[in-house]
Amino acid sequence: MQRVDLNLGDRRCPILIGPGLLGSQALLAEHAGAAQLMVVSSETVAPLWLPRLREGLAGRPFAQCLLLDGEEYKTLASVARIIDALVDARMNRDCMVIALGGGVVGDIAGFAAASYQRGVACLQLPTTLLAQVDSAIGGKTAVNHPGGKNLIGAFHQPAAVITDTDTLGTLPDRELRAGLAEVIKAALIADAAFFAWLEREIEALLARNPEALAEAIRRACEIKAAIVLSDEREQGPRALLNLGHSFGHAIETGLGHGRWLHGEAVAAGIVLAAEFSERCGRLAAGDVGRVRVLLARAGLPVDPPRLGSERMLSLLGMDKKVAGGQLRLVLLDAIGAASCTAEFPRDALQTLLEDRAGTGAA
Amino acid sequence: MQRVDLNLGDRRCPILIGPGLLGSQALLAEHAGAAQLMVVSSETVAPLWLPRLREGLAGRPFAQCLLLDGEEYKTLASVARIIDALVDARMNRDCMVIALGGGVVGDIAGFAAASYQRGVACLQLPTTLLAQVDSAIGGKTAVNHPGGKNLIGAFHQPAAVITDTDTLGTLPDRELRAGLAEVIKAALIADAAFFAWLEREIEALLARNPEALAEAIRRACEIKAAIVLSDEREQGPRALLNLGHSFGHAIETGLGHGRWLHGEAVAAGIVLAAEFSERCGRLAAGDVGRVRVLLARAGLPVDPPRLGSERMLSLLGMDKKVAGGQLRLVLLDAIGAASCTAEFPRDALQTLLEDRAGTGAA
Repeated sequence: MQRVDLNLGDRRCPILIGPGLLGSQALLAEHAGAAQLMVVSSETVAPLWLPRLREGLAGRPFAQCLLLDGEEYKTLASVARIIDALVDARMNRDCMVIALGGGVVGDIAGFAAASYQRGVACLQLPTTLLAQVDSAIGGKTAVNHPGGKNLIGAFHQPAAVITDTDTLGTLPDRELRAGLAEVIKAALIADAAFFAWLEREIEALLARNPEALAEAIRRACEIKAAIVLSDEREQGPRALLNLGHSFGHAIETGLGHGRWLHGEAVAAGIVLAAEFSERCGRLAAGDVGRVRVLLARAGLPVDPPRLGSERMLSLLGMDKKVAGGQLRLVLLDAIGAASCTAEFPRDALQTLLEDRAGTGAA
Repeated sequence: MQRVDLNLGDRRCPILIGPGLLGSQALLAEHAGAAQLMVVSSETVAPLWLPRLREGLAGRPFAQCLLLDGEEYKTLASVARIIDALVDARMNRDCMVIALGGGVVGDIAGFAAASYQRGVACLQLPTTLLAQVDSAIGGKTAVNHPGGKNLIGAFHQPAAVITDTDTLGTLPDRELRAGLAEVIKAALIADAAFFAWLEREIEALLARNPEALAEAIRRACEIKAAIVLSDEREQGPRALLNLGHSFGHAIETGLGHGRWLHGEAVAAGIVLAAEFSERCGRLAAGDVGRVRVLLARAGLPVDPPRLGSERMLSLLGMDKKVAGGQLRLVLLDAIGAASCTAEFPRDALQTLLEDRAGTGAA
């Protein structure tokens, strides 16, 4: 078992990574010790992994709330369903919400835990690579609004994150690749050596080599934990984790949630960010090529959909990372180094989007 | 102008109290400096006080969202309406939500501000005595669930609280009295001299003597600020502020929200808590009498509705202040001193409720 610690003052959040962890009675006794437990999962994940979690909980009773699968259910209505279940089960302030599933389940359950009785404990048991390396780490929770992704949410650190790497065995290929987009992003913003390691190991990762996957998860979690530690509430450095996400969110919203996976939209968004970094004179052309090639080798989209530049700009205007009416973008200065800035030529952005997303309102 | 400071680490929340403050351009320039403003108010309060706030904002543009009045609208649906308005107005992370109204408006708007983009600034402009002395202070925000009051919410400190005491001039008598219940509660848990002052000044307060009201607000805010400072997230001492509230919430839920005002239910709850404190050997009979007499002189109910002891006990079971399945109650040890405890005889509680709320399930 590997361990990464994310300790924010008096709030400790251990991140535990390894095979078989969902069934570990000792681990769950330690990290899910609350008297009242509510397992939130999805119709897809529960049949696969709830039996093992039940073993891990060693016969202790728990309530459950199963959500329909898919980004389109990441809504305030789903949060309300969980809260109804918590009230029905007469859960008190000392209860624990256990999120068993991917990023959607984790985000919804995390926000429900943040809001129920003004905050109860949440244990994250991520079952997708994307959740294991990114969304379950760091305490951001949210649901979508028709006007934009993740517009309603809270910062609420989980009590712990337990990643059973066996769960990757049941993950569809497409979702595995989508998770790799966030792993590649982590390397790009903070660790050139990790990026080079990914260039060497990408086939092993796609072939689901367990050691390679565990190592990739650990390194991505370490990078994210270090950034969250320096800036829990995204006043500064944490924004770097959004590399590719302004464009990615615009793509997801523009296509309608659920058409592309989040990681797929982020992959195309990372390429746009790298290309724009080059046009701003920040990044060498060869590095843009390395970014594009690695994402393509991971089986991810490297070209945005043809939504049209005007629509993309409008979608970027509603993006959360707009400060004081000014669009801020995360740009690459090198492989392994990024900056968040509002200082870039507007018309160059428009030209890039015309070139890559098409002209007109599409 | 009077000022109470509630500084929690790096988060400063000044509480400013005085006549005419809503119209003060200097004050609003200082405390509502955000580029994007969303005023949340109610259909009742906006016609009375939005014109003065507009003066105070000196022609600066703002969006607005008016809610229907009443506890029955303190729901997740109202939060969603505010968030819709924030999205429609394309408000970014640096916007400010301004809550102009009573406790219901402040609680809903505060939770919307806590949740929009994972937290934007909130300015509280309370226009009822209850909000001025209690609900606007300390960062608790919440909406109700059919299963219980304030079950969905967040801790989110306002940027500032500005109390224009002129607003009490348009407050119905019944609401003024309800606010006095929370003032009396503040004195009861922390300040015997303030309680004695209230015994002397209660008629002046009911006659809306401006100096007496400003003084009562300031002292109640000081008491609340000191307690919140010691325990922002209600792990311990802050629970004392719930004197009378476990019983009060049970009464409100049992009657159906909106039948009694919150302060009225709290008044009857305080008397129950005092009586139970006496039966537990904590409080002298004469002090119970003083509590009862002062609340009655304030025109508040001192007898609970006949909901039946079983129903009351069941309603108490879903109360937020239940830790580890154990009901905790705030009891009085003297006038000016309270404790929160789970150590009390259950059957004495049942007997008290049978005596005071009737037998059976009602």
